[in-house]
Amino acid sequence: MDKYDRVFELAKNRGFIWPSFEIYGGASGFYDYGPLGATLKRKIEDAWRRFYCVGEGFYEIEAPTIGVEAIFEASGHVGGFADPMVTCEKCRESFRADHVIKETVDIPDGLSKPKMTEIIREHDIRCPECKGPLGEVFDFNLMFQTWIGPGQKKKGYLRPETAQGMFVDFPRLLRFYREKLPFGVTQIGKAYRNEISPRQGVIRLREFTQAEAEVFLHPEFKNKHPNFAAVRELELPLYDESAQVNNGGPKPMRVGEAVERGTIANEYLAYYVALTYKFLASVGIDEHRLRFRQHVCTERAHYATDCWDAEVLLDRFGWVEIVGIADRTSYDLTAHAKRSEIELSVFVPFEKPIKVKRTAVTPDMKTIGPKFKGKAGKIMAALKAMKPEELDKPEVRLSIDGEEVVIDSSLFKHETVEVDVSGENVVPHVVEPSYGIDRILYSVLEHAYDEEIVDGEERIVLRLDRTVAPITVAVLPLLSREPLAGRAAGIAKDLKAAGYFVEYDDAGTIGKRYRRNDEAGTPFCVTVDFDTMEDGTVTVRDRDSMAQVRVPAEDLPGLFSELLCTGKPLEGYGKPVKA
Amino acid sequence: MDKYDRVFELAKNRGFIWPSFEIYGGASGFYDYGPLGATLKRKIEDAWRRFYCVGEGFYEIEAPTIGVEAIFEASGHVGGFADPMVTCEKCRESFRADHVIKETVDIPDGLSKPKMTEIIREHDIRCPECKGPLGEVFDFNLMFQTWIGPGQKKKGYLRPETAQGMFVDFPRLLRFYREKLPFGVTQIGKAYRNEISPRQGVIRLREFTQAEAEVFLHPEFKNKHPNFAAVRELELPLYDESAQVNNGGPKPMRVGEAVERGTIANEYLAYYVALTYKFLASVGIDEHRLRFRQHVCTERAHYATDCWDAEVLLDRFGWVEIVGIADRTSYDLTAHAKRSEIELSVFVPFEKPIKVKRTAVTPDMKTIGPKFKGKAGKIMAALKAMKPEELDKPEVRLSIDGEEVVIDSSLFKHETVEVDVSGENVVPHVVEPSYGIDRILYSVLEHAYDEEIVDGEERIVLRLDRTVAPITVAVLPLLSREPLAGRAAGIAKDLKAAGYFVEYDDAGTIGKRYRRNDEAGTPFCVTVDFDTMEDGTVTVRDRDSMAQVRVPAEDLPGLFSELLCTGKPLEGYGKPVKA
Repeated sequence: MDKYDRVFELAKNRGFIWPSFEIYGGASGFYDYGPLGATLKRKIEDAWRRFYCVGEGFYEIEAPTIGVEAIFEASGHVGGFADPMVTCEKCRESFRADHVIKETVDIPDGLSKPKMTEIIREHDIRCPECKGPLGEVFDFNLMFQTWIGPGQKKKGYLRPETAQGMFVDFPRLLRFYREKLPFGVTQIGKAYRNEISPRQGVIRLREFTQAEAEVFLHPEFKNKHPNFAAVRELELPLYDESAQVNNGGPKPMRVGEAVERGTIANEYLAYYVALTYKFLASVGIDEHRLRFRQHVCTERAHYATDCWDAEVLLDRFGWVEIVGIADRTSYDLTAHAKRSEIELSVFVPFEKPIKVKRTAVTPDMKTIGPKFKGKAGKIMAALKAMKPEELDKPEVRLSIDGEEVVIDSSLFKHETVEVDVSGENVVPHVVEPSYGIDRILYSVLEHAYDEEIVDGEERIVLRLDRTVAPITVAVLPLLSREPLAGRAAGIAKDLKAAGYFVEYDDAGTIGKRYRRNDEAGTPFCVTVDFDTMEDGTVTVRDRDSMAQVRVPAEDLPGLFSELLCTGKPLEGYGKPVKA
Repeated sequence: MDKYDRVFELAKNRGFIWPSFEIYGGASGFYDYGPLGATLKRKIEDAWRRFYCVGEGFYEIEAPTIGVEAIFEASGHVGGFADPMVTCEKCRESFRADHVIKETVDIPDGLSKPKMTEIIREHDIRCPECKGPLGEVFDFNLMFQTWIGPGQKKKGYLRPETAQGMFVDFPRLLRFYREKLPFGVTQIGKAYRNEISPRQGVIRLREFTQAEAEVFLHPEFKNKHPNFAAVRELELPLYDESAQVNNGGPKPMRVGEAVERGTIANEYLAYYVALTYKFLASVGIDEHRLRFRQHVCTERAHYATDCWDAEVLLDRFGWVEIVGIADRTSYDLTAHAKRSEIELSVFVPFEKPIKVKRTAVTPDMKTIGPKFKGKAGKIMAALKAMKPEELDKPEVRLSIDGEEVVIDSSLFKHETVEVDVSGENVVPHVVEPSYGIDRILYSVLEHAYDEEIVDGEERIVLRLDRTVAPITVAVLPLLSREPLAGRAAGIAKDLKAAGYFVEYDDAGTIGKRYRRNDEAGTPFCVTVDFDTMEDGTVTVRDRDSMAQVRVPAEDLPGLFSELLCTGKPLEGYGKPVKA
């Protein structure tokens, strides 16, 4: 069993993650979060909210997971969100074409479909299942499709990313933020990707959770972040494009320096790279198995100008992307404005109004009115929209409601005037930090997973950060009968009332219960014994050091609050107990 | 404008709720939660978790929103989750058949499809859109369907309720809870219902959020809830079946009395009715616009034995269901066990082992072995499973692998013996409180919505409970320039660091900003003025009473913590200020 198998075995047994629909044989790419997994996930998401919603002040919104077709036509997903697929002509099984080829020949990513078909023919590559002949390589769209309402009149798709819901809401969001840039919006929710044949366990899901922030910026001051000073001195493991091209490795670099040298394109991108580092460290990603890799020019999405991925090192899968921080430019807003024919821009006032030359047209209404009747108004508007040089002619030809109208120059006067213009409409740039919550969660588990030998026996312990561990305290009565059981239940109740996730556990020996809670990642165990009945003290045990101290039961809520906030070792509190 | 329109107008303008995909013309049954709406929703969900996950100790899980077909075949949704539909033969538009009929004739709910077709013919009911002729009434399944993976080999459905994910996980959940009843599991997440033509705004959604708890109980002690004493004396507005049949109204009744009289079937149901009352009151549902209505026998789901709905009174829609508390019996587990052929039961030990009479069969293996060879083992097993009276015959006929085998009674001996049996396998009963989060959210908005005349002007105020209001504090510098702006920003930052949802607002007059925050439901405004620069105090204003007090800025985090926890009026704190 490699580490993935060992971690996943623990995850299944302790109730973190298991395959979905097991009693019906499962379905690849679908996993359930069990009781501890869902709680861990919620705590990771809440930590993310503390960084982005509370800290950055970016409000969260919630758009539907089903979207109408127009959205994904505009975003390019209907046309371009596809993987190359090939189907066996004998058994009709389908495969990712590039994956099937790579099992035989080493090919680069991104080959054209005809090229891949050619390689299949050339090397006589056959169906991995039945050795039958493979057909042509074609594009398989990865969106799950459905129909909205009865019949097949209105196509709907399960969203492939949460981002589009925020772009489509741009007019409302702009109004909410009182028509001013910059502002940020976030969304945490499900996204879907109908993978052809996912085979990487919890790393490649068909249904997953994203946490995304879209930061809308004025394109011309996008290089300045108001809070940049707070991250300037932070040192990050940056693996930039040139290091990759030259077969180098990631190098530690301060964030400020990375921007000054042009390694990271601008302060906004750099700021969110830094915030990502802080967030990941705070939920328990091992900093020594984390790097930030710049996309090389061939792999950047069509819209992105610079893009950095947070990658973690996983035992089976190597370096895996868990966060992407991209400059999406004005690509999405421009595309939606075009498709919806609604202007998606912001009016930005100049510091002071500027003078602009405009054409002023004074028509001879006494003649134009009677002559052109109902068309007179449209003719005037058309004249006013023309440039001076177009008006400097003996007669002007206009197209009014598809009909050509000739206006003699005697019918109007025109002159060039200077007017004050107070600002301009701009389409904002968007910087997007996009987090894959499921991969982060699995990485947190793998990085927390530890095996050690204690007293000649193997101990498996999940060294989860105290603030994200699903259960904070397990309360263990030494014996499952009264009076210890009642006393322990009372202590558990008080801790719950103080807002802690508490587990009451009375099954098996104390040693067995400690081990079970080690595997669940529970940072603290509280044991209630006969001394508790005498002097009101309990034993508190630390998961990581296995140190034990004796403290009054009534001090527990305050003690855990302090231990969670400060991260200090338990050993400094209470009276030491020899295990 | 009726109240729904006024509340929805406010909801759109302030960023609570708006129609989805507006720039593409929208789609009925889909709404977005904007910045304040999503935050309010999150706080309502977190309050629910405090009741169910922390308080009741029911862990949350997270199953996918897409499910494989077998789940919904077993649950009955593929066969039975449908509405009667009728399509216009001229314009091809589809309608809910019963709704179209009700616009002309008053019919009861639940008529058969042929009966509805008959009524349409009889009254010559025509297409509401184009007056064309309507076709036959048929069933339209309300699940959104899709395909998992390439091609059309594997059907998937968007789940119509979160519940099934918990039933399907029963074996894993039982193991997590160490094979012991009772235990509870919860899920908060999206569910989908592809309504034919939803027309009730945010009350009838195609994509919505449920919070459901499934409580797995031993069927024979389902009448006893360990914590029932905590709710026994609570008085609830109960509208039972007999009151409805006799055209009565809801009557206040204590929970204990309701169980004693048999009004509510058992303590578990009654306990969750009471918990629902407490939860709804805590998030701001008006207790005078809330009742609990028992399902009458004709409307109960096929599986439910007793069911109570929490209903709220809404201005446009009348009494609307927002929570259902049902006894689902063992219906779902039994159905999934049958479909999956996996036993979904719990071994429950008896208090002490009981003596059970069994038949002991001693075969004459020396004869049976050689005579029946490979079948000998199966023959023995079949004999042991028979009753004594079946064995008291000269010869016994068995069916082995579909073939009849005759065994002479000389080939075995049998006797009746008493054995100890330590327990039995039972299929748990399930009690399910199921909450519609979107309807609860809208009801909270409508019940909080208030208009009043202040100084001759209309004031609109959203009297949201302090703990669920999206923004807790707005910080307002008297002027938007230094030094007030910087000082106010500092105060906002400190409050954010203390974990509060804070809005910094410097646009417009103070009066305008107060009104804006009244409409957003922000309970407290903090104004920073020139005195703040002198003596460090700020003005705190209460949204509901509009009272203002002067307190030191440094006391704010503690003050708000106290005001949120205790719900006390602001007037008791600091130095009163005349408005």
